[in-house]
Amino acid sequence: MYELLRSVLLDPFAIMNSVGLVAFALVGAAKAIREEFDLFGITVVGLVTAFVGGATRDVLVGRIPLALSSMGEITLGMVGVSLAVALHLVLESPDDHPITVVSDAIGLAAFTTAGAIVAVETGVSSFGVVAIATINAVGGGAFADILLDRSPFILVTDFYASCAVLGGTTYWLLAVAFGAGSVAAALCAAVTVGTRLYAVRFG
Amino acid sequence: MYELLRSVLLDPFAIMNSVGLVAFALVGAAKAIREEFDLFGITVVGLVTAFVGGATRDVLVGRIPLALSSMGEITLGMVGVSLAVALHLVLESPDDHPITVVSDAIGLAAFTTAGAIVAVETGVSSFGVVAIATINAVGGGAFADILLDRSPFILVTDFYASCAVLGGTTYWLLAVAFGAGSVAAALCAAVTVGTRLYAVRFG
Amino acid sequence: MYELLRSVLLDPFAIMNSVGLVAFALVGAAKAIREEFDLFGITVVGLVTAFVGGATRDVLVGRIPLALSSMGEITLGMVGVSLAVALHLVLESPDDHPITVVSDAIGLAAFTTAGAIVAVETGVSSFGVVAIATINAVGGGAFADILLDRSPFILVTDFYASCAVLGGTTYWLLAVAFGAGSVAAALCAAVTVGTRLYAVRFG
Repeated sequence: MYELLRSVLLDPFAIMNSVGLVAFALVGAAKAIREEFDLFGITVVGLVTAFVGGATRDVLVGRIPLALSSMGEITLGMVGVSLAVALHLVLESPDDHPITVVSDAIGLAAFTTAGAIVAVETGVSSFGVVAIATINAVGGGAFADILLDRSPFILVTDFYASCAVLGGTTYWLLAVAFGAGSVAAALCAAVTVGTRLYAVRFG
Repeated sequence: MYELLRSVLLDPFAIMNSVGLVAFALVGAAKAIREEFDLFGITVVGLVTAFVGGATRDVLVGRIPLALSSMGEITLGMVGVSLAVALHLVLESPDDHPITVVSDAIGLAAFTTAGAIVAVETGVSSFGVVAIATINAVGGGAFADILLDRSPFILVTDFYASCAVLGGTTYWLLAVAFGAGSVAAALCAAVTVGTRLYAVRFG
Repeated sequence: MYELLRSVLLDPFAIMNSVGLVAFALVGAAKAIREEFDLFGITVVGLVTAFVGGATRDVLVGRIPLALSSMGEITLGMVGVSLAVALHLVLESPDDHPITVVSDAIGLAAFTTAGAIVAVETGVSSFGVVAIATINAVGGGAFADILLDRSPFILVTDFYASCAVLGGTTYWLLAVAFGAGSVAAALCAAVTVGTRLYAVRFG
């Protein structure tokens, strides 16, 4: 257990991926709670929001999705869903509560970074790095919107996907200039979450 | 021919996959007939409903989709489309006829089992087995709904995907306890089709 | 540079793929301009329309999408987006201008051919060749429609996907009879663009 925790803390991908899974499962489940789905529906929307971006990333780079092979992913996803249900018991409407809005920005930043790390490791083009980072970050929410028959295009028009593009570009530039690693990951996440929270506050 | 038939009958995946292809092509084509599509549209919706779940399963486990490499798949898909057209010539509205409703439950069960078999062979996690079984079962119908601009979410809320989750869980438990094989496959299919028909009758 | 150009001109896939990328990025961007998106939205819809069909083809045959690994793809996609913006500055409504309508037919034909070439090289079934050619040709436009929350099914009902099916079948027949190559590619593209323009003119 201690060893596991230690290896996660030294691995930027594992940190970012774990944070993103909890945050996006919470956000997706909160959205389903507002739609008054039953517990099965809440769980499905939460897990879809958490898993589809990373699964698409893995398929694009030719891997079996982590969410299907690692029990850690489903555990973290269920933590996020449980947090949303717990929030719902305490708060009136978890969907637009600041906790959910901040979770969404954190998830966006964490998954942008996780996607950029995998893309740079795989050795795709600069555009490929930005594209995979953005797909990892936006794919889950977009797919949940499609399932719910909403247009996911608000993710493009609402300065949401743009934050992932900025973060992914930051990671790629730093990886080229100084090498991939924890510093590039931290700055990528900071740019993404910073621009997103700025857009939410002043956009 | 005899050899082929014999090998299919001894292979639970081949049986389940064949049954699912015919059943879901029939269901998809019947849906397109109700929408008054032309024959090309009927064929496309039928084949999409039959193929997309299994193709997604294959992509997730890193294989080229069977539907693209095996002529058996397209043959069975066309059998299902032809059955729907034949039913339409005999019956008023094939879409909600008991034959179509039962076909849908049978297809759901058969594809849940086919997906669970492939997932256990591939060696994914327990969650991965249930997820792939459910995606195999629900993916084709959901994708057809997205093409037709309907919300596929009724598949989650209407005790439809839940039956595949129960069947996939059954298969995984039996595979762990007694080993994968025909018995696990038969029970997985029975649980899925039984819970689905119960839901249609009493839900 | 000269060597690069020469190798492209001798490679039917490279020609068809390049033409399709510029044409479909133009068509997608023109559609986004009509929706009054900002420049980021126009670029996303243009690139999605240009890239998603080929990326799906590559995932289905087990490759990392070219659009993620080759800088040529993004360059050609940006040329198409820029052409749409330039057209918009000159013309009132680039979306239904003859240039856009013809570009769409040319893109359809070029991507049908590119998909058929890859499918025959991969060694899928005859149905697989037609299916991959059609997915390559129609996938980008269909995905853009899903993002914009429109039904992509008009692509099936409006004698659009049918043209790709005819072209893909032509390529497969010629590849079996005389071998894959430039002649099969040219005739596949001619059948697709011819039937499509005929449908637009007289349909």
